[in-house]
Amino acid sequence: MIMEKGISSVEVLPSKSSQVTAVKVVVKEPETKQTQRGKRVGFVLVHAGAGYHSESKAKEYKHVCKRACQKAIEKLQAGALATDAVTAALIELEDSPFTNAGLGSNLNLLGEIECDASIMDGKSLNFGAVGALSGFSLAAFKRNKRKLELAEKVETDLIQLKKRRQSNEKVIDSGTLDTVGAVVVDQEGNVAAAVSSGGLALKHPGRVGQAALYGCGCWAENTGAHSPYSTAVSTSGCGEHLVRTILARECSCALQTEDAHQALLETMQNKFIGSPFLANEDGVLGGVIVLRSCRYSSEPESSQEKRTLLVEFLWSHTTESMCVGYMSAQDGKAKTHISRLPPGAVAGQSVAIEGGVCRLESPES
Amino acid sequence: MIMEKGISSVEVLPSKSSQVTAVKVVVKEPETKQTQRGKRVGFVLVHAGAGYHSESKAKEYKHVCKRACQKAIEKLQAGALATDAVTAALIELEDSPFTNAGLGSNLNLLGEIECDASIMDGKSLNFGAVGALSGFSLAAFKRNKRKLELAEKVETDLIQLKKRRQSNEKVIDSGTLDTVGAVVVDQEGNVAAAVSSGGLALKHPGRVGQAALYGCGCWAENTGAHSPYSTAVSTSGCGEHLVRTILARECSCALQTEDAHQALLETMQNKFIGSPFLANEDGVLGGVIVLRSCRYSSEPESSQEKRTLLVEFLWSHTTESMCVGYMSAQDGKAKTHISRLPPGAVAGQSVAIEGGVCRLESPES
Repeated sequence: MIMEKGISSVEVLPSKSSQVTAVKVVVKEPETKQTQRGKRVGFVLVHAGAGYHSESKAKEYKHVCKRACQKAIEKLQAGALATDAVTAALIELEDSPFTNAGLGSNLNLLGEIECDASIMDGKSLNFGAVGALSGFSLAAFKRNKRKLELAEKVETDLIQLKKRRQSNEKVIDSGTLDTVGAVVVDQEGNVAAAVSSGGLALKHPGRVGQAALYGCGCWAENTGAHSPYSTAVSTSGCGEHLVRTILARECSCALQTEDAHQALLETMQNKFIGSPFLANEDGVLGGVIVLRSCRYSSEPESSQEKRTLLVEFLWSHTTESMCVGYMSAQDGKAKTHISRLPPGAVAGQSVAIEGGVCRLESPES
Repeated sequence: MIMEKGISSVEVLPSKSSQVTAVKVVVKEPETKQTQRGKRVGFVLVHAGAGYHSESKAKEYKHVCKRACQKAIEKLQAGALATDAVTAALIELEDSPFTNAGLGSNLNLLGEIECDASIMDGKSLNFGAVGALSGFSLAAFKRNKRKLELAEKVETDLIQLKKRRQSNEKVIDSGTLDTVGAVVVDQEGNVAAAVSSGGLALKHPGRVGQAALYGCGCWAENTGAHSPYSTAVSTSGCGEHLVRTILARECSCALQTEDAHQALLETMQNKFIGSPFLANEDGVLGGVIVLRSCRYSSEPESSQEKRTLLVEFLWSHTTESMCVGYMSAQDGKAKTHISRLPPGAVAGQSVAIEGGVCRLESPES
């Protein structure tokens, strides 16, 4: 794998609000050279949620992203397809007590866990989802320290929530948005995407969020007759905002234009923050990870034509922060990063965007 | 209300299959003149499903559509907004034992009822949905003759279904697709749409279909900065096909172009039957009712500018038949119609499209 220059962005964001702060983000993507380890190529990008990631827990969030990347890459190196790899990443992310998915899911108003999750295969375009999946026993989670704390906190939080609602106070608890997700491209160029979420903390029982909904939580679509690029997207954030904008599919469509970075930025600005479907919202909270790939030939005359897979990967968020990890099948280890809005930028009104590019070259070439 | 000429269509449909049959449909929309009854204007279009409606039950289907229209119009005449009117229509449609919604819902593999439904308000763009809503007692429905028959049929059907699956036989039981829905425009020009379904007969418990999913079962969007028309759409048919194509929203977007009839036809051909997301399906089964409206002035110099609401209404289906009803607030009674593919046309590969236009003029003008 050869890491290309990171995509840098310097953006002044017009928006519906005049208080929007300009966001300047320059990617720290290093120009690294790894030795070629496996015979297979492939790439994974994961996230542990768009929301607020405290500095004190940064290490744990990064660690789980790293492990998730490694699990996916192990699959890819063993010759698995994108859907298997993306599943492996999700299982690892769900098994962490720090993420709001699977084991670490937020509790609903009844103190129970109800999960949303979905997966999409870019090759077959098949999609599967579960919404408000219950049947988890809280008792089974009590050994887990975080869950125990949460269980004890539910009653207190419930009282506070009721008080807040009574006083009509706007509560944007961006710390509770840490849905997880992953996007993968495999050696054959197939893409897959997945997302998993415990949903809003103290949600009403039966509430279903974006992670279970078609077009909203994840999207994957291999290149086709009218699509020069294969694209995979996974979203995180406020479920209502992501659903009403059908954000995953919207990003995927936008990524068919030439400049992926510009396309994603415009989507986040115009179709998310500026969406008429969210005109009454004070802030629009969400984040996406996207990956797009296409085969290309660096030497047009070469018989090795289209052996190389060009992978562009980006993350963008309007929340305070977003924790991501990524890794190629030929990397020694995953890179992790907590992307943050710059100081002064207002969450829900500003967009951060970062990413990188890599070329995956088949070992034979 | 003045009924304009019906939209007639003579279409030869190219499609992914060479066996597609040309569909010729001429609308029977009569040029009627009604006396002005109420002071309010408004229009409702309902459907009792795209599927197969036997001649023997045609009367019942038409009758429930007529009653649903009347309920909606009563609301509109009383000054209610589109969302209230569309709800009134849905309640009537759900309360019929002949439709696959509410009372008459198909039973799942456990012999229980689980309903999907959603509603969208074009003014606020708010959307609400329930999926696999259970808690209905079968015992409570036993007094209902159809339900009793169904309950007794479940075991037999289950055995047959298992046999079919074992023999890998393709089963398209289009008789089970009779979801219901309605679209409404009120005197203020607001649109609303709703849909309700009992889902597939003998579905797996917990299965959620298009009627519960954003963008898939219904869509309503008032005119806006970038939308010259207010649009409302409700879909019916095979849930998987309607979900994977996000058909309600797709139709709504398409309806912003000038020729509504052409836009809907192209959407049904290219984004539904010809969708790459359904490339592996033998037949693509669904139907939509759509309504779009805009204010216009018949006399540009007049002070009555934009007092008139132009309403175009259409239905289109790839199923054998679709039962619809429609009514204006100034009509004496609803019109009902069972639209059918012409003889020889293959369900799942052919499109029928019909509709009409009416002008709603405020009594004061």
